[in-house]
Amino acid sequence: MDPQRLARQIQFTLEIDKLKRVVRKTLLTDASRMENTAEHSWHIGILAMILCEYAQNPDLDLFRIVRMLLIHDVVEIDAGDTLCYDVAARKGQREREMKAAERLFGLLPSDQARQFRELWVEFDTMKTPEARFANAVDRLQPLLQAYHTGGKTWRHHQVTRAQLLERMRPIEAAAPALWEYTLNLIDDAVARGFLLP
Amino acid sequence: MDPQRLARQIQFTLEIDKLKRVVRKTLLTDASRMENTAEHSWHIGILAMILCEYAQNPDLDLFRIVRMLLIHDVVEIDAGDTLCYDVAARKGQREREMKAAERLFGLLPSDQARQFRELWVEFDTMKTPEARFANAVDRLQPLLQAYHTGGKTWRHHQVTRAQLLERMRPIEAAAPALWEYTLNLIDDAVARGFLLP
Repeated sequence: MDPQRLARQIQFTLEIDKLKRVVRKTLLTDASRMENTAEHSWHIGILAMILCEYAQNPDLDLFRIVRMLLIHDVVEIDAGDTLCYDVAARKGQREREMKAAERLFGLLPSDQARQFRELWVEFDTMKTPEARFANAVDRLQPLLQAYHTGGKTWRHHQVTRAQLLERMRPIEAAAPALWEYTLNLIDDAVARGFLLP
Repeated sequence: MDPQRLARQIQFTLEIDKLKRVVRKTLLTDASRMENTAEHSWHIGILAMILCEYAQNPDLDLFRIVRMLLIHDVVEIDAGDTLCYDVAARKGQREREMKAAERLFGLLPSDQARQFRELWVEFDTMKTPEARFANAVDRLQPLLQAYHTGGKTWRHHQVTRAQLLERMRPIEAAAPALWEYTLNLIDDAVARGFLLP
């Protein structure tokens, strides 16, 4: 056992505890408070386990999907969470996240740092079927929560049907059966006044 | 696509959102608030990915470990989190958790309900090397956090070295190299007055 290697692994573990204090733009289902990024990451890890049967490509490496989902938002410790509809706030976001990935994954021993960085880049660039399905799940979970609070955050930010559709679009190719479900939910949200038409 | 099957999967997804409101007996590393069980589950999922190289048995199915860790505490939605040193509160805990597992995993389609229940039982009975390693990680994470808050919760509950050692014991067989690290941390915690001798 290499004590310095273990020390780096423990240091990373303690550092990512901070993700529990990064507040997202999504409410919990009971609208009692905003969700944090750590618990969001847990939720979508399980959601991927449950919904993987709907993936367009049935031979996906589910473990890679779950690993991607667990770590893809760690960069928010340094870069913060930005509202997906806020064009101004998203400016420079990519650069902030790249720097964050360097610093945070760089706390790990170099082999693990490389693995984690690769998973993060894979998620972000959406070039593999695994990354596309992971992104679909990452979009679906806040949609479900927002719908079940009566669209509180959508109404607050005056989100339109077109904006939400655009945001959910990765679901279409990654999981066509879930896309049909998503479209119905969005239309229902408009009909109920949760979302601007 | 079977709409009733998907409806059950979505219902389970919304139900487990409640785990974000189950408060544990562990502080975040910066001691700003108590940790909830959803974010704890996320944290140990990543910890397992990082530390699996220290497992006694190197041929473990890491994905089964991560799945166990993500779902093993879902029963706390109904059964609550009990302090591991509180003998009175732990009375009847097993029965409460069994009932919770029936209800919560039972929301899923029957094949997935069975898979999730099996993972939960496997974790709990610690009979496989995967379950033993998962339990080791589940013990180590709160130890790290408690140590880094100067043992605030240990002092509050007047936890002794012997109690903590007993609690950490699963680490010994599952990951001997981490056991050495754990013993050193505990001795250091006593020396610093974080923990009763």
